[in-house]
Parts: sequence; C-alpha cells; structure tokens
Amino acid sequence: MTGAVVAIGGNAILRRGEAATVENQMNNLRRTCAPLARMVKRGWELTLVHGNGPQVGNILLQNELSRGEVPPMPLDVCVAQSQGQIGFMLQQAMTEALRREGVDHEVVCLLTRVMVAHDDPEFISPSKPIGPYYRREEAERLISQGWRMVEDVARKGWRRVVPSPRPLAVLEADAVRTLMTAGDTVVIAAGGGGVPMVRRDGRLFGVEAVVDKDLAASALAKGLGELMVFLTDVDAAYLDLSGPRQRAIAKATVEEMRRYHAEGNFLPGSMGPKVEAAIAFVESQGKESIITSPELLDKALDSKAGTHIVL
Amino acid sequence: MTGAVVAIGGNAILRRGEAATVENQMNNLRRTCAPLARMVKRGWELTLVHGNGPQVGNILLQNELSRGEVPPMPLDVCVAQSQGQIGFMLQQAMTEALRREGVDHEVVCLLTRVMVAHDDPEFISPSKPIGPYYRREEAERLISQGWRMVEDVARKGWRRVVPSPRPLAVLEADAVRTLMTAGDTVVIAAGGGGVPMVRRDGRLFGVEAVVDKDLAASALAKGLGELMVFLTDVDAAYLDLSGPRQRAIAKATVEEMRRYHAEGNFLPGSMGPKVEAAIAFVESQGKESIITSPELLDKALDSKAGTHIVL
Repeated sequence: MTGAVVAIGGNAILRRGEAATVENQMNNLRRTCAPLARMVKRGWELTLVHGNGPQVGNILLQNELSRGEVPPMPLDVCVAQSQGQIGFMLQQAMTEALRREGVDHEVVCLLTRVMVAHDDPEFISPSKPIGPYYRREEAERLISQGWRMVEDVARKGWRRVVPSPRPLAVLEADAVRTLMTAGDTVVIAAGGGGVPMVRRDGRLFGVEAVVDKDLAASALAKGLGELMVFLTDVDAAYLDLSGPRQRAIAKATVEEMRRYHAEGNFLPGSMGPKVEAAIAFVESQGKESIITSPELLDKALDSKAGTHIVL
Repeated sequence: MTGAVVAIGGNAILRRGEAATVENQMNNLRRTCAPLARMVKRGWELTLVHGNGPQVGNILLQNELSRGEVPPMPLDVCVAQSQGQIGFMLQQAMTEALRREGVDHEVVCLLTRVMVAHDDPEFISPSKPIGPYYRREEAERLISQGWRMVEDVARKGWRRVVPSPRPLAVLEADAVRTLMTAGDTVVIAAGGGGVPMVRRDGRLFGVEAVVDKDLAASALAKGLGELMVFLTDVDAAYLDLSGPRQRAIAKATVEEMRRYHAEGNFLPGSMGPKVEAAIAFVESQGKESIITSPELLDKALDSKAGTHIVL
C-alpha cells in the first residue's frame, strides 16, 4: 500500500466571495476531485482532509440567527456538523470522479476527533477569529458571558476569537488505517481539522476551539502515509512573495524551509501552517511533502511542478 | 465476533417536549449508553444506529430562519449534518460509558448513505412530515416552488412532507464490517436512517427524502449481526395496546408477529416500523431480534424482559 494524505485547502471547496450554496461547493469539489481520482488510478491509497472555515462560520451564524427558536450548539458540535456537511459533499464529488476514471474504490467519511493539550497556550491567548460579525453592544453582552471578542476595524465589526491549539494525535487514526489497509477505499477524515478534545480526570471532553486542518492532516499522516500533499490556491510556496525577486520553491530540504519560514517568507494562517505541517511530516517520517494547486497535481506527482519538501 | 446492531429510538436522545440543548441530549445519551457499554462488556461487538427526527427538524428550521444570510442546504446535506451532530454526541457518551465499565473499546462514527429505488412509490406519494410548521401563505409559496405540504389541523400549521423510501442497501456496509471485524470498536452508522441516494445513469445522487432508521438498521444488520436490538420508550411490543386485554409479547415467531401486525396491533411510524425491521432481519438471517427499553436491556439479554422475535 502506498498511502498518501492530502490536505484540501478551503479554496478547493468555496472560492473567496462565492455564495456558500451546495451548487457552488459541489462544482468546486468536482474540479478538485478530478486530479485526486487520477492519483488513485496511479495507485495511491488516499486519505483526504478538508477545511471548514466558511461552512462552520455559516453554521455558527445560523445558530445565532435562530437562537430564539433552536438551542444553539457549542462549537465542538458545530465542527462535527460541518464534517457531516462537507464530508458528504466531498464523498459525492469523489465517488463521481473515481467513476469517471473507471476506478472501483469506495469513498467513506469518518467523523474525527483530535486530542489537544488542556494547557495549550492558545487556551490562555486564543488567536482564531470565527463566525459572524457582531455590533459593539452585542459583542459587549457576549464578552460579559465569557466569550473573547476582537474588533475587526476593516469590516467594522466584532468577532469571536477561539483557541486554535496544536493537534497532538488523531483519535480515529487506527480506524483510518484499518479502512485504508482494507484497500480500494478513499477515506475522508479530520475534516475541519477534527473536533478538538481534551482529557481531564481521565475523561474526554470536546472543547470550543478549532484545529488547523493542515496540522491535523500532518498528525494523522504520521505512520499512515508515504506522501503528504497540501492543495492550495497557488502553484507552489514562494520566496519573497509579491516582491521584486519573487520565485517559486521547486525543491527544498526541511532545513532550508525552516530558514525561509524564519525569514518571514510564509504568511501566518495561509502558507505558514502548510509549511509547518509539511516540515513536521517530512521530519518525523523521512518522506516527501508537496505543496501545489489541484490544477498542477498531476505534474507535481511527476516532479514537474509544486514545492517538494524532503529530508 | 458476536456482532449486534442496536437501533436507538429518538426518545433515547431527546424526550418528547424537552428542549434540544446539548445538555439534555447528552444526559439522555449517557443514560442510554450505560446498558450498551455493559453489553460490550458481555462480549458483543456493537453497531449503533440512531434516529434524527427533532435534530434534522431543527437544522431545517435554522436553514429557514437564516435563509436571507446563509444559503439553505438541501435535505440530504442536512441529514448528513445531523449525523455529524448526533454522532459526535453519541460517540462522547458511549466513550464515557465504556470507560466507566473499564472496557477498552474505540467508538467511531461513519457518515452513512443508503441506496433507495428511484421508483419507490414514496417519490410519487410522500408520507413523512418534517421540519418547521408554516403559515398558510408561506405554505402556498413553498408549494408553488415544488414542495409537498400537508396541513396539521391540531398544530394549526402546514408542514413539508418528504418521501420515506425503503432502504435497499447501506453503501458503507463493507466499511462498517471492516471496522467491526478489526475488533474492540463500537461503530456508529446509518444515523437518521442514512442519507438516501438514488442511481441515475449509473451516477449516485443524494435525494431530498428520509429513511426510517429502524429499516436502515435492519438493512445494515444483514450479514453483519447475530442479533438486532430496537431500543424504544416502552419495555416491549404490546398486543391490544391501551385496550382492556393489553399484554406484552414476550416471545413470538416471525409468522405470529406478522399476524399481530396485520391485526393492527402496532402503530405506524412507531412500533410498526420496528416490528417490520425486526421481521426482515430475523427472516433473512435466521437470528433473533429484541424490542425493549434501555432500562430493561440487561434483563432482555438474559431473556427476562422485552419482546423476542425468532424464526
């Protein structure tokens, strides 16, 4: 078995500014799944990890707007809901793409939880803005109820910030491995980075936080994959992005990537976590990571495109 | 491996009239999971199937109330969302219950799709009321957009009716078997009866319909389980219910149950589908089915409570 874990960027499901209709999401997913199905045809056993930013944001907004009639669910439950929502759409798009390629694989989606440390610094200083924008009065009420909020001056609104702790382990990793090993199965797992869980007094609890899906994918890939692919909306990682000497990185070692990162080449919340996740995987597994776009995936697998990160 | 499939009634998650808060649902689920964990301790490998009536109703209501700001999702996607929502809560409650019993099992939840026939009579004459109540004017607008609606005179409102087609096969049945066979794993599957899918021109499509969870559990259990259990809010199936000669059925053959059913002993939409699902399982597998309440499950497994249906 040659397993690969592919982290699918948010843009592959919903482009910036697009309405979050099922039609738009399915159209984007169909485009993303075509090269993934070709990858399966080439012999790779795939595990797919997707983001959930706009979708969980919309579920939170629906919770707010319906609060008078439907009890709102906590964020951990909303993340699980978004796994069902996006997982099902991705499952449909991938099933269709495989059929187009004449590949007889099943596509299954596992609800996935991710362990985080209860003393992760993010629980003290949360960093991740999420969900709808609020007016000042509402924000003040919510802050008095215990939420952390930040003002977004550009959008003229207040937003909830939640912790984005580092994933330690994927609780469903064994089940993913069992399904992958059974063969002829594409597994969808760790959607939206997984539902973050902490252990207190030996018991597991869901927590109101979100986990970066690239880091969760990397945690899942340990011991599972020969290769990690990060699909995003650019063809490769760049040095000196938007500067006079902008250039794509074709191949780099972990050491080089770490230096480039320290020099500030990779945007936080964007290319940054992908590079960190790629480094973590390559370093722990001694395998390769690729950062590229869905359009260039075929070429990247032939080492003719994308950024290749090696030991 | 002694596999059992347990269909968990709606009441085991949310009691009639209770607010659908996460706290209420978790409390009910904890109560339901305690005897299920003891069943695992006795050596059973469990697959759990849960209902989703109130939860998918609330998701549909949230879609309606937020329609101006968030594009509503079709019913098939909402069912998948409800699988994520309830599956995660059930996974937490079951994990905790197993830990209490000192049983070292994983609990995993598979997003599940169920094949139905594109020419099922329910697509012509849908029977299942679902989601919020509407005023006449709104109902007329929705009917003009293609929805089927029925007036509920008692509740003084109009409600959408959707098809409830018969499940033919569970698409994730192989994956459930793989996970069950791997051992030490409780699998949650076919939540809410599964997302109904039809095949047209060789392609699979989700459809706006709902599948009865007891019938879906029975379809899943074929070839998987040695036993099926239907957990509900009564201790057994009754003859002459609420009549002068009301009596519980302790043990009956498929033939007897079919006669009792034809005589009108079992309410449609309530005990009726459970009895039909039990009959289908026992008949096809030559194994036993039990209908009982969570409170009496331990006794029922010792043949001291519940309704036992045999060949």
